[in-house]
Amino acid sequence: MRFHTRKWVKPEDLNANNTLFGGKLLAWIDEEAALYSIIQLENKRVVTKYMSEINFMSTALKGDIVEIGIDVVHFGRTSLTLKCEVRNKMTRETIVTVENIIMVNLGGDGKPMPHGKTRIEFVRDRLSSPV
Amino acid sequence: MRFHTRKWVKPEDLNANNTLFGGKLLAWIDEEAALYSIIQLENKRVVTKYMSEINFMSTALKGDIVEIGIDVVHFGRTSLTLKCEVRNKMTRETIVTVENIIMVNLGGDGKPMPHGKTRIEFVRDRLSSPV
Amino acid sequence: MRFHTRKWVKPEDLNANNTLFGGKLLAWIDEEAALYSIIQLENKRVVTKYMSEINFMSTALKGDIVEIGIDVVHFGRTSLTLKCEVRNKMTRETIVTVENIIMVNLGGDGKPMPHGKTRIEFVRDRLSSPV
Amino acid sequence: MRFHTRKWVKPEDLNANNTLFGGKLLAWIDEEAALYSIIQLENKRVVTKYMSEINFMSTALKGDIVEIGIDVVHFGRTSLTLKCEVRNKMTRETIVTVENIIMVNLGGDGKPMPHGKTRIEFVRDRLSSPV
Amino acid sequence: MRFHTRKWVKPEDLNANNTLFGGKLLAWIDEEAALYSIIQLENKRVVTKYMSEINFMSTALKGDIVEIGIDVVHFGRTSLTLKCEVRNKMTRETIVTVENIIMVNLGGDGKPMPHGKTRIEFVRDRLSSPV
Amino acid sequence: MRFHTRKWVKPEDLNANNTLFGGKLLAWIDEEAALYSIIQLENKRVVTKYMSEINFMSTALKGDIVEIGIDVVHFGRTSLTLKCEVRNKMTRETIVTVENIIMVNLGGDGKPMPHGKTRIEFVRDRLSSPV
Repeated sequence: MRFHTRKWVKPEDLNANNTLFGGKLLAWIDEEAALYSIIQLENKRVVTKYMSEINFMSTALKGDIVEIGIDVVHFGRTSLTLKCEVRNKMTRETIVTVENIIMVNLGGDGKPMPHGKTRIEFVRDRLSSPV
Repeated sequence: MRFHTRKWVKPEDLNANNTLFGGKLLAWIDEEAALYSIIQLENKRVVTKYMSEINFMSTALKGDIVEIGIDVVHFGRTSLTLKCEVRNKMTRETIVTVENIIMVNLGGDGKPMPHGKTRIEFVRDRLSSPV
Repeated sequence: MRFHTRKWVKPEDLNANNTLFGGKLLAWIDEEAALYSIIQLENKRVVTKYMSEINFMSTALKGDIVEIGIDVVHFGRTSLTLKCEVRNKMTRETIVTVENIIMVNLGGDGKPMPHGKTRIEFVRDRLSSPV
Repeated sequence: MRFHTRKWVKPEDLNANNTLFGGKLLAWIDEEAALYSIIQLENKRVVTKYMSEINFMSTALKGDIVEIGIDVVHFGRTSLTLKCEVRNKMTRETIVTVENIIMVNLGGDGKPMPHGKTRIEFVRDRLSSPV
Repeated sequence: MRFHTRKWVKPEDLNANNTLFGGKLLAWIDEEAALYSIIQLENKRVVTKYMSEINFMSTALKGDIVEIGIDVVHFGRTSLTLKCEVRNKMTRETIVTVENIIMVNLGGDGKPMPHGKTRIEFVRDRLSSPV
Repeated sequence: MRFHTRKWVKPEDLNANNTLFGGKLLAWIDEEAALYSIIQLENKRVVTKYMSEINFMSTALKGDIVEIGIDVVHFGRTSLTLKCEVRNKMTRETIVTVENIIMVNLGGDGKPMPHGKTRIEFVRDRLSSPV
């Protein structure tokens, strides 16, 4: 799994117990899944369809740094299934894992559209082709 | 299921496709589960431990109104299991359902603590007792 | 008065005295008045025209839960007059009341338009008619 | 009346009608009244106690610039009464006026405390005294 | 230099060290430069092109009030060069200065466009002419 | 240069011209510099002291994905000098570069403190030692 995006836990990210607000964490995961899919599918119109169960294993405190990892589970015809792990860089604990996040590729009409992708691509592999 | 909190979908709640950002919706659900639990358990220190799978069935557009319903599934010894449904007041469609959200009651030491509750209470039933 | 929407007071809602920021509270009231009107008038284009005096009677602290109640005072021809009360679920104190909030129903041209409503309706009463 | 603070109306400040969200405007007014009072009373612990009626006369669009003016109406013993006008720099229209905003000076115990001020001071007049 | 906009440092503006988050401060400076330019150039389409070096000299704490000053350095043909100073009203210390902020005036096609201005104007000087 | 954090440009990140708000971009850069330093210096108390000039070369639109790269320029005794580049993943254009960002390592007294680091470390190299 590749960990890209990192977040610095600031006062605005805390719940009333002074730990990382779970809702903020879920928003970060959803954004990361969306942008990962947009890059892989080379299409800006991608939406979240499904998330499997979410188990909050540990938390983070103000000033901690959190990193979000995404991996591909499966390329469907119009969908992309991802898994996600969020870790605390300070404590090295896993905060949460989500085994399946299903993203759907949409066409201009807002309906699912085949994306034609079957494997992970890195942007450098595409440098000669237009996006 | 009782639907309390309502949200007006404003520009800041949209993703780049101009539909309700899924991450914002998840944050709203988590906040509603937390505040419902705090009221029921009469304890401010409650955290989200688990959410079962989340199926995004429809969405909402700018200007739509969304309402969030919560019901109790089970009172555990230190936990409270809730279910949640989010509906679009405009289209009357269900946006998302979450069958199980497990909230944990914490003591002053941050560890799970028995809450002593076994059934839903309404605040009017408690008016003679201190909170 | 029916109390629907609830808010969990989080660090981002506080002023520099660590009490609920009055401006945030006013924004919550305005949003609730708007969404209540949109539901009643079955029109997304509704704007706030007037608020009567606002008396801050008590406050809320981090982790408190606040609930917002709205009632109809009067159905005008192009307007709807509401009253609002905000209460602290923790202390059971009233935080603020606003006796008159006048909302105006707009047409596609942005000008006041008769809404044709004369009494409160509940969405279940409308289930056979299109919104 | 002196107009200090200016705001650039950005997408995050709009309601679902694409005009300035009234709730955001009220939050801006409350913040301006608070910071004006803090400067005049030389005390960080100042809270909003009352706002007189608010009449929304015009609005602002994305990209417009709004300026907020504050003037002192009356110095009380523990309070300061302000008036506020918000104008649209683009259209030169008044957006809203609030005739009386009562701010209360608090002591370290959170209770109203005499502030000892009787007239507007400018910070340059105080340069030889500690704040 | 004229100081207009003031900000009240609230919990949401802090970094994890409980001092004003530098990124928030930079966002405030950029907004102030943009709105100052929009007023001077009488054009809503103005973008930031360049900022010279930024030296953080002091900071601000929760509840402090910060004021942002802007002055014109130079009127170019399609650009406007500003300088900016941010001060802490509580401590009277300079928080940051930026010697050159270059703003560019855009036409309807998104390309630089001559703005025809050569000196600072005040809005009252323009009251007889349309904006 | 290693690019970690990615952002999805959402409506709340736009200025009134519908391009990425420069102030938001600067806030993202500052956060990334802070969290990179915290990880490298193994100290949560790190603040931004200086940024060299910032040249906005291109922009991003709603739905674009932006990635932020950081590299170390120099390890000082109490400071760490970084460089930063922000790229648009959609257009492959550089949005902005900052050649020098000086971060300062603070002790418990809020004063600069030697950090004892002389080269980039990766967290996996530290797995046997406590953080």
